[in-house]
Amino acid sequence: MLFSKSFIFTQREDPKVAECNSARLLLKGCFLSMISSGVYSYLPLGKRVLEKVNNIIRKHMNSLGAEELQLSYLQPIEMWEKTGRDKDLGDIMFRFKDRRAREFVLGPTAEEEITEVVRKYISSYKQLPLTLYQIQTKFRDEPRARFGLMRSCEFVMKDAYSFDIDEQGLGENYKKMLAVYQDIFKECGLEFVTVEADSGFMGGDASHEFMVSAGIGEDILFYCCGCGSYFKKEGNCPQCGKNLEEKRMIEIGHIFKLGTKYSQAFDAFFLDREGVRKPITMGCYGIGVSRLLAAIAETNCDDKGIIWPKSVSPFDISLLVLEEKLLPQAFSLSEILEKLKLHVLIDDRKEAAGVKFNDAFLLGNPFILIMGKNYLNSKKIDLEIRKTRKKLNLNEEELIKFLKNEYGR
Amino acid sequence: MLFSKSFIFTQREDPKVAECNSARLLLKGCFLSMISSGVYSYLPLGKRVLEKVNNIIRKHMNSLGAEELQLSYLQPIEMWEKTGRDKDLGDIMFRFKDRRAREFVLGPTAEEEITEVVRKYISSYKQLPLTLYQIQTKFRDEPRARFGLMRSCEFVMKDAYSFDIDEQGLGENYKKMLAVYQDIFKECGLEFVTVEADSGFMGGDASHEFMVSAGIGEDILFYCCGCGSYFKKEGNCPQCGKNLEEKRMIEIGHIFKLGTKYSQAFDAFFLDREGVRKPITMGCYGIGVSRLLAAIAETNCDDKGIIWPKSVSPFDISLLVLEEKLLPQAFSLSEILEKLKLHVLIDDRKEAAGVKFNDAFLLGNPFILIMGKNYLNSKKIDLEIRKTRKKLNLNEEELIKFLKNEYGR
Repeated sequence: MLFSKSFIFTQREDPKVAECNSARLLLKGCFLSMISSGVYSYLPLGKRVLEKVNNIIRKHMNSLGAEELQLSYLQPIEMWEKTGRDKDLGDIMFRFKDRRAREFVLGPTAEEEITEVVRKYISSYKQLPLTLYQIQTKFRDEPRARFGLMRSCEFVMKDAYSFDIDEQGLGENYKKMLAVYQDIFKECGLEFVTVEADSGFMGGDASHEFMVSAGIGEDILFYCCGCGSYFKKEGNCPQCGKNLEEKRMIEIGHIFKLGTKYSQAFDAFFLDREGVRKPITMGCYGIGVSRLLAAIAETNCDDKGIIWPKSVSPFDISLLVLEEKLLPQAFSLSEILEKLKLHVLIDDRKEAAGVKFNDAFLLGNPFILIMGKNYLNSKKIDLEIRKTRKKLNLNEEELIKFLKNEYGR
Repeated sequence: MLFSKSFIFTQREDPKVAECNSARLLLKGCFLSMISSGVYSYLPLGKRVLEKVNNIIRKHMNSLGAEELQLSYLQPIEMWEKTGRDKDLGDIMFRFKDRRAREFVLGPTAEEEITEVVRKYISSYKQLPLTLYQIQTKFRDEPRARFGLMRSCEFVMKDAYSFDIDEQGLGENYKKMLAVYQDIFKECGLEFVTVEADSGFMGGDASHEFMVSAGIGEDILFYCCGCGSYFKKEGNCPQCGKNLEEKRMIEIGHIFKLGTKYSQAFDAFFLDREGVRKPITMGCYGIGVSRLLAAIAETNCDDKGIIWPKSVSPFDISLLVLEEKLLPQAFSLSEILEKLKLHVLIDDRKEAAGVKFNDAFLLGNPFILIMGKNYLNSKKIDLEIRKTRKKLNLNEEELIKFLKNEYGR
């Protein structure tokens, strides 16, 4: 991909609206565009990162046998009245009427709708267990939208729902999901903690949150610097007795054992092996995808820009071509790398070297290749690792070996 | 994929709400679920087809150098006031206010928003041309929602936008897009016609529509059975003089030369080579993705179910296992086929052969493999081609050769 032909127009100045590193760098780096306070569009660079995160999530969801679907955006208010959550959620939901006076909600979540859908198809224990998920934009009429994608009025969410014949089945599904969540966040390059949590307005009797430590976090945990554990409550560490210190955390995922609250409300029952009518036992499993993207940027950056983990970077390599006459060499090197399924952003612009370096650091692709004057003679290329700032000077064979090793190709 | 573990629960009875073949079969076959009149959810089978169509579109858009982005769902009303289209579109738009009295629209299209976004980044002719696209759910407060996905209140749309320095650039982009649209619809297995059309409320001075002939179509063209041409106006064929007959058509795509209507309204100007300030010249290019999906089903079905074209079928093969003891053989055959990147739905259910055949015909995967009693002795398998109903009896080697040939593997 050529930089000169791409929708990558980085900003020199810091955006006025950005209140944290992730929002500042995502806006400045042309990943996002602000449409209104709390409302953002994903520009091509941001869309690339978003899809990489989505595909990591899909891979792990599918590995559990979960199936992807796409629920409607318009949710009839009657669904929410069945659980009474139209009142619980109240003003946080966008509500409006259509020309026929049907009232709709733009869903902040979809427990009601998925239960209504599944109810129509499930009648026997033979059809269970089942897990369904979607990756969809959700909405909140947020009273204090801030920190870019951290707290916004529309956001991408992965919401999964499990359907079991009993608590034991739910327990097994829940345990698998708990494990897979760890895999997802690890693969996204996040340092996170898992804590038991309240179920709150979701109902049900068990839940776990997945949290990333960051100064802009809005949740609070208590940290023991002795044993490295996190707790929900302040005081002394129950494990080593040390004083716990307050840590601000970003919630990136939350999973719940819902039990039968929703299936009872929607009459989502099945006949068990003995022909007895029972409510389906449900779990729900959320990941705040856009918030996760922001959490990655927030915890993986320096003063020059973002440092994307390899798994989610928009490109694998920024190839800076510092002399126009080297373009043919750059194209041929890029072709070799693309054959290894490495995605290369060739900075072919007629710009000063400094501009190219600044943009490469701002965009944050993991590896920066610099093709300068002495490439023609030496046939060796400079590689800089974005994260460690380590510099290597490699010939083509060494470079390919290095990258193959980094990407397990 | 095992049928017994999948969210595929076909309905015995025809759904009451279905007014046409595509809606009837998509509901009955567990592709879609109706949430409210004109509002549908894509169940896992439908989501599979949708993503196949989306990926065909992406491949062709990317081949033009177009970049994918994801605009916000919430569009501030102020954007629509700038072009006056808030009045033109009127009641067709869902409009509502948030808690801070900001008024938003759920976009039926996105010319305004994309122009507002691009305006912020483009200042020089050096940054042009550019083409951006997204595949996104759009909304219409439809007074007469009907025919399932044909005319619904929310629908998936591919909307692309081109940005050029002048009419000539637009002309070139438009021509390329016109050609690529033909490729997309062909690859989706559709018989379609391309006709010059009015620009209507979009503004601009040229447009083409892409239409599929079907009884439930809501657009009308006039057809010459002599030379096979389609025309916008009734009368006699200007080419061969024959009487034109009326044909009902489904519009699946529409492309427009917009000119500078939107760039003028949003002050989206650039400096040309001579330093003169000029408005960006725009084009827009839409595909009604969910309608296209319905048009495929509508024009590719028989009394037993859908007959998906190979490019968009949920699976490539339905493998019906008629004896439980043959399951190990079915799994090993499926593994071989999956290695050829053929996706197999193994019907492993404890159901009568008739039920399995009915479902295979209803779901409409292109090839049906039948593993019955005599497979153990003969090692030959029955293959039925869904479309032609042609039956073959093949050994493993012949089967693989046949499928490799069909799928160009």
